[in-house]
Amino acid sequence: MKAMEEKILQEGHVLPGNILKVSHFLNHRIDTAFLMEMGTEMARLFENDGVDLVMTIEASGIAVAVAAAASLQVPVVFAKKHKSTNLSGDIYKATVHSYTHDEDYQVVVSKECLSAGHRVLIVDDFLAMGNAINGLMSIIEQSGSQTVGVAVAIEKGFQSGGDTLRAQGVRVESMAIIDSMDENGVKFRPSFS
Amino acid sequence: MKAMEEKILQEGHVLPGNILKVSHFLNHRIDTAFLMEMGTEMARLFENDGVDLVMTIEASGIAVAVAAAASLQVPVVFAKKHKSTNLSGDIYKATVHSYTHDEDYQVVVSKECLSAGHRVLIVDDFLAMGNAINGLMSIIEQSGSQTVGVAVAIEKGFQSGGDTLRAQGVRVESMAIIDSMDENGVKFRPSFS
Repeated sequence: MKAMEEKILQEGHVLPGNILKVSHFLNHRIDTAFLMEMGTEMARLFENDGVDLVMTIEASGIAVAVAAAASLQVPVVFAKKHKSTNLSGDIYKATVHSYTHDEDYQVVVSKECLSAGHRVLIVDDFLAMGNAINGLMSIIEQSGSQTVGVAVAIEKGFQSGGDTLRAQGVRVESMAIIDSMDENGVKFRPSFS
Repeated sequence: MKAMEEKILQEGHVLPGNILKVSHFLNHRIDTAFLMEMGTEMARLFENDGVDLVMTIEASGIAVAVAAAASLQVPVVFAKKHKSTNLSGDIYKATVHSYTHDEDYQVVVSKECLSAGHRVLIVDDFLAMGNAINGLMSIIEQSGSQTVGVAVAIEKGFQSGGDTLRAQGVRVESMAIIDSMDENGVKFRPSFS
């Protein structure tokens, strides 16, 4: 999505530690018009795949998921994060390692909110090592539903998450894939779509 | 908003401790079509107030804020929650007490994402004691911007937050105001709008 690459070049900032700061338009302040445009593009890419549910993880995935789901005209379920491993009740859960914070957390979805038989599109703001996505895929599998694909705003192509998922046969659509970035700038993977 | 009252009656559940569970359509699973309808109604109520920014707090406020902001065609800033009081940097912050979890947390907004002179609509999913809203109003005041009003999905009218704000002259628009609730059902405050 050319508009995403342009937005990153215009408003993103590369910080030490391979951090791309996009807090001005994506995950602190949200450019709503741009967000809805991104959701429309994600919906277009998966319009023939029978998606009937969008899933994401709180907090910064929610806005992107709502935009995609509004365009697809399907509901959203957002998984919740808990630090405690001592969770019970009627829930699906998966353990996810955060490289950003170097700690494990639990991703949790109430069984009441996710039944079997859905065709689920996973949506998130970032894809780096893919751990959060893998946690969501585990929960979707536990529920008896099916992951149709993954749509993310920004993929860090120099980390392995996206390409590992693709090698496993998962369809991953990223609005921009960053192949390298440093203080001199950002380089994108050429798009063939 | 009649549709919100009907939704609560159809899909909400009252749990012990004055908890209204609306996780099936509002804050875990999101009924996207209903969400966008609610955003349109919030935008209609404030369409003549020159709102140029919507603010909320992560996580469950984000979806409602995006819906309202998309309809108003303005950006969203969502404040972040931190447990640490030891925060520094170019931020605005306020301390908020959570009655649900009986603990204090910090509400934080980066100064880069909130400049002076904005006319801000605060949006959230719930209004009970109003502590989160007061935290946001403090941050907006710190920034040199102005709170134009507050729009929430569900107000617990039997708690004091909404009416205290109104007594202070703050315009509060709630899509439904619950005057009482127990295992026998939910009673709404009559609407005069």
